Amino acid sequence: MRTFDLRTGEDQFVKDLRVVRWEQYALDREVPFQAMWYSVPPGSESPLDQHPELELSLVVAGTAHVLSGGEEHEIQQGNAFLLSSTEQHVVQNRSDSVELTVFSAYWMPLAGDHGDE
Amino acid sequence: MRTFDLRTGEDQFVKDLRVVRWEQYALDREVPFQAMWYSVPPGSESPLDQHPELELSLVVAGTAHVLSGGEEHEIQQGNAFLLSSTEQHVVQNRSDSVELTVFSAYWMPLAGDHGDE
Repeated sequence: MRTFDLRTGEDQFVKDLRVVRWEQYALDREVPFQAMWYSVPPGSESPLDQHPELELSLVVAGTAHVLSGGEEHEIQQGNAFLLSSTEQHVVQNRSDSVELTVFSAYWMPLAGDHGDE
Repeated sequence: MRTFDLRTGEDQFVKDLRVVRWEQYALDREVPFQAMWYSVPPGSESPLDQHPELELSLVVAGTAHVLSGGEEHEIQQGNAFLLSSTEQHVVQNRSDSVELTVFSAYWMPLAGDHGDE
């Protein structure tokens, strides 16, 4: 069994977001997705993002407000959201005191996935 | 974008653990793993489990104590653990007041994964 610690993981900063990418754990042969944690300080938000990978996100601390496709969703701790390929998104932390932390898994579209048809 | 709510998901109970399986969301064509949440009441633990799938678990609330391979690991909220194929495990909630909730993704071993060689 292997363990992964958000707090001690090697990180980088994107704007004021702390990002811990799972590439450092070299799990490519074992795990069918890429992954990262990112932490958004109170009052901040992620840059507008858009990528070919689908992305499943779990809120592991705080509350996320996600803007995507002209809609806004509040995602509470423990809950999840799935972004389709190329779907634009911004993740906001509207708290004035609590850090938001999200775990995201992402992967290229699967063969046989024809989206929302 | 789709959202998934731990609290309102259709659930079942395994002993006193509340389990919300993601099969209900019918994501098979889009997502390269199966998934579930499970919640362990204070002072309780999961049944001993062992399965061919690898399993990546994220602690989304509370603290987990995981017994596996003769070792014991404390996994705090936000952190993760990866079980190999067929690795036995028990997940304990040693808190006397706080529920433990874990999100788990699991999948069969990938072609080309030869384990810990």
